Amino acid sequence: MNQDYIKPDAWSIIEEGFDATRVESSESLFSIGNGAMGQRANFEEKYTGDTFQGSYIAGVFYPDKTKVGWWKNGYPEYFAKVLNAPNWIGINVAINEETLDLNTCKEVKDFVRELNMKEGYHQRSFVAVMPNDLEVKVTATRFLSIVDDELGAINYEVEVLNADAVVKFMPYLDGGITNRDANWEERFWQTLEVRAENDQAFVVSKTLKTEYHVGTYMQSEVTLNGEKLQVEGEVEKAEDQVSIAYAVKVGKGEKIALQKYAGYVTDMNHNQDSLIAAAKNVLQKATTSGFAQLLQEQKEAWAKIWEMADITIDGDVKAQQGIRFNIFQLNQTYLGKDERLNIGPKGFTGEKYGGSTYWDTEAYCIPFYMATKDQQVARNLLTYRYNHLEKAKENAQKLGFTNGAALYPMVTMNGEESHNEWEITFEEIHRNGAMVFAIYNYVRFTGDYSYVPEMGLEVMIAIARFWQQRANFSKNWNKYVILGVTGPNEYENNVNNNWYTNYLAKWCIEYCIENIEKIKVEYAEDYSRIMTKTSLEAEEITKWKEVAENMYFPYSEKFGVYLQQDGFLDKAIEPVSTLSKKQRPINQNWSWDRILRSCYIKQADVLQGFYLFEDHFSEENLEKHFDFYEPITVHESSLSPCVHSIQAAKLGRMEQAYTFYLRTSRLDLDDYNQEVKEGCHITSMAGTWMSIVEGFGGMRVVDGKLSFTPQLPEQWNGFSFKVNFRNQILKINIGKNETTFSVDGNDPMTVLLNGEAIEVQNTLKS
Amino acid sequence: MNQDYIKPDAWSIIEEGFDATRVESSESLFSIGNGAMGQRANFEEKYTGDTFQGSYIAGVFYPDKTKVGWWKNGYPEYFAKVLNAPNWIGINVAINEETLDLNTCKEVKDFVRELNMKEGYHQRSFVAVMPNDLEVKVTATRFLSIVDDELGAINYEVEVLNADAVVKFMPYLDGGITNRDANWEERFWQTLEVRAENDQAFVVSKTLKTEYHVGTYMQSEVTLNGEKLQVEGEVEKAEDQVSIAYAVKVGKGEKIALQKYAGYVTDMNHNQDSLIAAAKNVLQKATTSGFAQLLQEQKEAWAKIWEMADITIDGDVKAQQGIRFNIFQLNQTYLGKDERLNIGPKGFTGEKYGGSTYWDTEAYCIPFYMATKDQQVARNLLTYRYNHLEKAKENAQKLGFTNGAALYPMVTMNGEESHNEWEITFEEIHRNGAMVFAIYNYVRFTGDYSYVPEMGLEVMIAIARFWQQRANFSKNWNKYVILGVTGPNEYENNVNNNWYTNYLAKWCIEYCIENIEKIKVEYAEDYSRIMTKTSLEAEEITKWKEVAENMYFPYSEKFGVYLQQDGFLDKAIEPVSTLSKKQRPINQNWSWDRILRSCYIKQADVLQGFYLFEDHFSEENLEKHFDFYEPITVHESSLSPCVHSIQAAKLGRMEQAYTFYLRTSRLDLDDYNQEVKEGCHITSMAGTWMSIVEGFGGMRVVDGKLSFTPQLPEQWNGFSFKVNFRNQILKINIGKNETTFSVDGNDPMTVLLNGEAIEVQNTLKS
Repeated sequence: MNQDYIKPDAWSIIEEGFDATRVESSESLFSIGNGAMGQRANFEEKYTGDTFQGSYIAGVFYPDKTKVGWWKNGYPEYFAKVLNAPNWIGINVAINEETLDLNTCKEVKDFVRELNMKEGYHQRSFVAVMPNDLEVKVTATRFLSIVDDELGAINYEVEVLNADAVVKFMPYLDGGITNRDANWEERFWQTLEVRAENDQAFVVSKTLKTEYHVGTYMQSEVTLNGEKLQVEGEVEKAEDQVSIAYAVKVGKGEKIALQKYAGYVTDMNHNQDSLIAAAKNVLQKATTSGFAQLLQEQKEAWAKIWEMADITIDGDVKAQQGIRFNIFQLNQTYLGKDERLNIGPKGFTGEKYGGSTYWDTEAYCIPFYMATKDQQVARNLLTYRYNHLEKAKENAQKLGFTNGAALYPMVTMNGEESHNEWEITFEEIHRNGAMVFAIYNYVRFTGDYSYVPEMGLEVMIAIARFWQQRANFSKNWNKYVILGVTGPNEYENNVNNNWYTNYLAKWCIEYCIENIEKIKVEYAEDYSRIMTKTSLEAEEITKWKEVAENMYFPYSEKFGVYLQQDGFLDKAIEPVSTLSKKQRPINQNWSWDRILRSCYIKQADVLQGFYLFEDHFSEENLEKHFDFYEPITVHESSLSPCVHSIQAAKLGRMEQAYTFYLRTSRLDLDDYNQEVKEGCHITSMAGTWMSIVEGFGGMRVVDGKLSFTPQLPEQWNGFSFKVNFRNQILKINIGKNETTFSVDGNDPMTVLLNGEAIEVQNTLKS
Repeated sequence: MNQDYIKPDAWSIIEEGFDATRVESSESLFSIGNGAMGQRANFEEKYTGDTFQGSYIAGVFYPDKTKVGWWKNGYPEYFAKVLNAPNWIGINVAINEETLDLNTCKEVKDFVRELNMKEGYHQRSFVAVMPNDLEVKVTATRFLSIVDDELGAINYEVEVLNADAVVKFMPYLDGGITNRDANWEERFWQTLEVRAENDQAFVVSKTLKTEYHVGTYMQSEVTLNGEKLQVEGEVEKAEDQVSIAYAVKVGKGEKIALQKYAGYVTDMNHNQDSLIAAAKNVLQKATTSGFAQLLQEQKEAWAKIWEMADITIDGDVKAQQGIRFNIFQLNQTYLGKDERLNIGPKGFTGEKYGGSTYWDTEAYCIPFYMATKDQQVARNLLTYRYNHLEKAKENAQKLGFTNGAALYPMVTMNGEESHNEWEITFEEIHRNGAMVFAIYNYVRFTGDYSYVPEMGLEVMIAIARFWQQRANFSKNWNKYVILGVTGPNEYENNVNNNWYTNYLAKWCIEYCIENIEKIKVEYAEDYSRIMTKTSLEAEEITKWKEVAENMYFPYSEKFGVYLQQDGFLDKAIEPVSTLSKKQRPINQNWSWDRILRSCYIKQADVLQGFYLFEDHFSEENLEKHFDFYEPITVHESSLSPCVHSIQAAKLGRMEQAYTFYLRTSRLDLDDYNQEVKEGCHITSMAGTWMSIVEGFGGMRVVDGKLSFTPQLPEQWNGFSFKVNFRNQILKINIGKNETTFSVDGNDPMTVLLNGEAIEVQNTLKS
């Protein structure tokens, strides 16, 4: 926890003062991205202190040879991971032939770094006293364009404060990049071509094995006091690198600046052979516009995103900063334009978790994207999984399932499983349920049923097949049981009858059957296509029903609660509050077996089920389960506090809901888990959004209408957000005394406020 | 399975014909060792086909940096593994400057390989047609001396059948050796010195990190038709290698031979600085004796071992060959002279399992060594664990245990845990019970109680402390439970209340308390020393008792059997016989999760408990459990069939007992699991011995006397074995019609035969 490091500000993340020990953490927090690429906030100039270099291209991955202790049958051979890509931000700077390096300067003064979330850029300025006693003021501004997502731009301005001097900029491209988390220290990239032409340079590389071709490019211009200078560039080429140096003699106090336009073009979007041409095309447009104009367009584009996605919080700047940081990072990671892409748990802010897709997308991210973007975005996320259906079937087949049963991977880039811990890879199968829930959620929210006959039903059938085969009949209970699973609570492994998993399995089958019946009647053509394709017969459905209807659920009569799993009550049950601080987080202080046999829960498990299927349980029942499970939950997953925040709000426990909210929204800003240097927790940021909208706002979909039961944390004066509901934009403003609604456009919208129907017009009235 | 490859023979393992695809398997089967060192049966001459080079020195290990997928708290940093040591067997051979290499010869005829178990040597002969059309007959004889366990000797004889030719022998030493199973392809050895003097050569190396210093040495002599020749050697030295070449022009049909004396001296037994001097000393003695004399001494020494350890089987040569192979390999692996050494699961025949010590020693090997060697040998094995007690306490401390509780490692070389799969390392804790059972077994068999006050009780106390802390009180059962364990049946992981583990835990505590009370009365001085050292108070013992007396045991009223673990009856229970052949062994054909949730048992689990504590259960009860569990046991551990063989014999099911016996005794010879090329299953070979002595012989210790209930498999005419019981040698001869006993020395011995006391004299009468 590092609560006071980041300055509170409604629209910006601000760091003041240079602290070498914080460089890696700040590189994560100040990351920038545009959905197609992203990068950690590394310095442009040379830096010899501790730094974690990272620049990533969405969708470009490498199947790293997997690393395990003891091989288990069924493990995948490869762990597909997002690649640290060629570096294009680099600008070495020498002044009177001395290299600028904050790690070797005599003094670094007035260091300020700002991530301007409103306008979508990163800026860093400082005054450095160099070893040669030159005092240099630097202001570096950088952004990744969301207007042209192949383009990045840097304005790097230097002012020598105490002498005339020769300033030499050496902007470069470097293709000799490795991943910090490479399993075998292999190199992932091969450089194919290094080229320099006038002020432009190009490095064409390909990834080994996957053969993604990437063109990294740059073009630079030099200005003196804002006026463009003609300076002859000096090219230097190496095997993986190219630089073009510009040296200018400048007077004391003059402002010399380099504008660098750079980025990636890939063969995901261009012909392999025309990458350099494509890059030239981007550069042509960029240099015609110039840095100022590009930045202006960036600001306007971000304004449009904020117009829809912003949540305002009145009277609590830290809460405001937290939610905007979350919304900003989500939009930097995924903008929803491309159904080949998805949302990695760390986005473009680090390498951990391989940058791959987890069930986080379906369980946490879809609601955010569904409500703050065009509904096509959520549909793209669903289509991503539909496109992976065949791979999911292969995955299940590897584990012994037959007849087109599918098991979606725990971690994936291309549909193949990458994860390799048996207790997760093979057993954390509840993820399959999240795939179906996301479809249900999409239909419920958008009202767009067309996805189901077109794609969704095939996914549901394959998953229903999986559950039916995965359950077995227990003569002991005279019920179907699901043995050997790991629930969302990964602090128990290989358990029998995890309530959440069993509940999802039953629901998946029932929901699938319900949709088969509907499509049979309403989409006869799709029905016959799907039945032919899947060879599904009535007999098989009968078997599914048998399993769903006779599913076993562990339950305690004594406590009146569903049990997380069989045998749960054999544990010594002591609330988390009895643990000493020294023992927390237990995942850093206890051996794994001790964690497993303890009663402590990593993240919502039974309560996760109550969250997804809220309508199936009474509020009284929720309260009983919340009171049973929350006190033994350690929330050591970033995905835990948001669910608890929503449920605490529902139970009217606003103080607790607010505490959970702060924990989720400022998890990275305040570095609760002392690990932000590895990257930010991107997917859980969508949970933060839910805890405001669904928690404090109480937003639900009821009979095809939006319903709200707003509550205001007492620390706040009010808050507001917008929701795109079935192609209408609704704005909700919750104040101390009233809640007001407004709708864009000419059509009114009926919403429920605390159960009462209200017709909302395009004005602000309640 | 490869049932007819090895020729049946009572005293030898014989392979006929050269099959390149079998080279690696035969390298395992024909391994030789002398307790201090051992090696796979690699060819002396160059071989470019598939081969698995291996030469190992007992006790010399390397802490290889561990390899895991995802790190769990509590994992050890290092996996200590036995090292592939410098090669001293190598003799490159060139004839008329063409290198002899069976992989490139035009033809290989009359290839015969024999492992002469009676006399303790390995011999290989063949006629090869070389690419240059020379026809060469080779006979290579090799052994590792059990008289001087630093010495090996080779006689390599060549006869050119179809021409006069120049035969050049190039005996060499090679220190540039790697382990095939190195986790990170690191090199483990550093060569310190390479020296050649006259016909002697030396390579002094040290292991990295552990800094064992090893001198590898050789000296060669050349004979022509049996007469010593003076040939000038030509020395060649490289960074890690040294060779001395001897070239002789020989006539067609003449026999030219090289005698190579070589081996290791280490700083486990000598000063670091005097390794070469020590080697010269060995060579001096060896060359004075000469090859024939050394081989004669070897034969005599093996005769002595066989005199005591042999089991004869009349009328079943395959069974005879099997048991002798097992006894031979056990003696090659461990001779019991050195309490620093132990018995690795693969002995000196391969690298798998790191050559380290497992609970196999206590559960399977001790009975064999106890009965066929001086009782000091078994005591050395116990002392080995006593010497590791402090490390076992540190190991438990790492996992959160306190107050001197000990958890012995799953795998170790020096007392530190090496294993790193959480479900085994942290959870397969029944191994702790095996440590105590071995003490109990030792006292029961040898009558030597002195070990307990001197060392054993401290081990017991530390283990009792572990069990008391590891159990927790379940309000649900009103009993103590042990959660999150893996039993001997590793086809279930992280289960609750594994019956075997719970039973051992209770017994360990009770046996410890019983011994504390005995020592308090009978060994007052030891008692006060131990109580002071362990700070054990009456209160703590009360806590232990509370746990032991209230231990929970899963039991099925319906089936009248103890259940392997909680929830076992939720599984779909189908006998192994319903599985198709294609699915077996399931550990090669099923994904891990499928194995885990199946009912199939890898090895005796509940039945292992019935085996250890036979007296605690009625025969009727054994039968019920055997009939419940055996049909669902796949015996995919080499440690499984022997226990079942003993129990089947006890239940009078001799046909089944015999089938299990063959499976255990010829596991490697017939390559049941298609994996012998990785090495032989050494520790389970002691189980084979048990299945004859305890199974067919029915040997038990009853009230301090040996008791027998012999039964003869119908395939046999008779069998005999010897037992060293309390320093008297008893010979048992079981025939079709009678069992006869004889005892060495002048004192008679009372034994029980089918419950009746018999006084046995030093003659053969029943």
